[in-house]
Amino acid sequence: MTNSSKFSASEQAAIYRVIEARRDVRKFRSDTVADEILERILRAAAHAPSVGYMQPWNFIVIRDRKIRTQIHDAFQIANDEAKAMFSAEQSERGEAYSKLKLEGILESHLNICITCDRSRSGKIVLGRTCQADMDLYSSVCAVQNLWLAARAEGVGVGWVSIIKPEDLHAILQLPEHVVPIAYLCVGYPEHEFATEPELKTAGWLPEIPFCEFVFHDKWGQK
Amino acid sequence: MTNSSKFSASEQAAIYRVIEARRDVRKFRSDTVADEILERILRAAAHAPSVGYMQPWNFIVIRDRKIRTQIHDAFQIANDEAKAMFSAEQSERGEAYSKLKLEGILESHLNICITCDRSRSGKIVLGRTCQADMDLYSSVCAVQNLWLAARAEGVGVGWVSIIKPEDLHAILQLPEHVVPIAYLCVGYPEHEFATEPELKTAGWLPEIPFCEFVFHDKWGQK
Repeated sequence: MTNSSKFSASEQAAIYRVIEARRDVRKFRSDTVADEILERILRAAAHAPSVGYMQPWNFIVIRDRKIRTQIHDAFQIANDEAKAMFSAEQSERGEAYSKLKLEGILESHLNICITCDRSRSGKIVLGRTCQADMDLYSSVCAVQNLWLAARAEGVGVGWVSIIKPEDLHAILQLPEHVVPIAYLCVGYPEHEFATEPELKTAGWLPEIPFCEFVFHDKWGQK
Repeated sequence: MTNSSKFSASEQAAIYRVIEARRDVRKFRSDTVADEILERILRAAAHAPSVGYMQPWNFIVIRDRKIRTQIHDAFQIANDEAKAMFSAEQSERGEAYSKLKLEGILESHLNICITCDRSRSGKIVLGRTCQADMDLYSSVCAVQNLWLAARAEGVGVGWVSIIKPEDLHAILQLPEHVVPIAYLCVGYPEHEFATEPELKTAGWLPEIPFCEFVFHDKWGQK
């Protein structure tokens, strides 16, 4: 079976390269993402790990202009509120925030909302008995799978988190037990994929040296 | 720059294959995972997307037997409670649960706890102003990157979520603002990687057909 087989050095290199080359894309061309590519990246998402094999995800593929305009309006309101928060903290921070392009809801070929159905597979879920958010995390793993598969296909993905969950609930008619995890803009990027995160390039925050992330045996121990 | 380059058909195939071949591993050989492999998979984790470029993750690499024994004890307590919950629901379910091997804390070469520092980069975080859990989700993306990189290296990873977060806090001496996201057992698998999720093979839950996950424009619309 293919699953038990090994990965060659060149295959490993491709896997590491896609992990490093994945970017959050905010500027899109309007070119169509072919249906077979869309299906491949959604199937990759569905191969994510899930707590207790719950498979709590759904993928809402959004093409309708009216719905996307409603989502964009919801983004604008949340973004204005965010801008005000940064301005209140420090006026230059508010200005820098205003200059960033943070979404491509209308320009991208399509949008995808990845959700988590908290009621799926019943009340008691293996592996979720004392960590209640594990189902949300499963859906996040699906997002990351989709993102990497899309990058391999040359398709850009941008995660827009500046929308109130209650607005997503209302616009996408989500049932109460369904949590919107990620609202994604999906399409071909306007330019080449950037070589580093845009917020690093823009000087928003610096890259943290890798060695600072690693501890041994307990918190803070180097 | 490598980041803007394309992926060939064979590279794409390797990327899709690792996504499909990743498994939750619970049975390990005790063989050493070389330091350079460990570093590669941790660096892959650190290439995850993060909200507002917050990079909220840390990686606690746990080799100490005493600490791992404490973690294992905490697992036992949480697992006994879980078993009782399933038994109360349905006696056969409790029996089936008892038969599952759900962790490899002591047998695996090492353990890794991936955390989220909620205070990193200050009080207001770009992209987290109206979705407060985005930082947790960033650390989950790091877990999935690590998992895929490990699979490419032939290294098994098992996510143990049957431990109370307060026990992880106490044993690993996590500060209050740090959330343990994933406790991972890491090492070479005892057998070949399984061809499908173990809980599917064990008949715990069936695979949901892919077509059931996909909606169009709003919840429930096919």
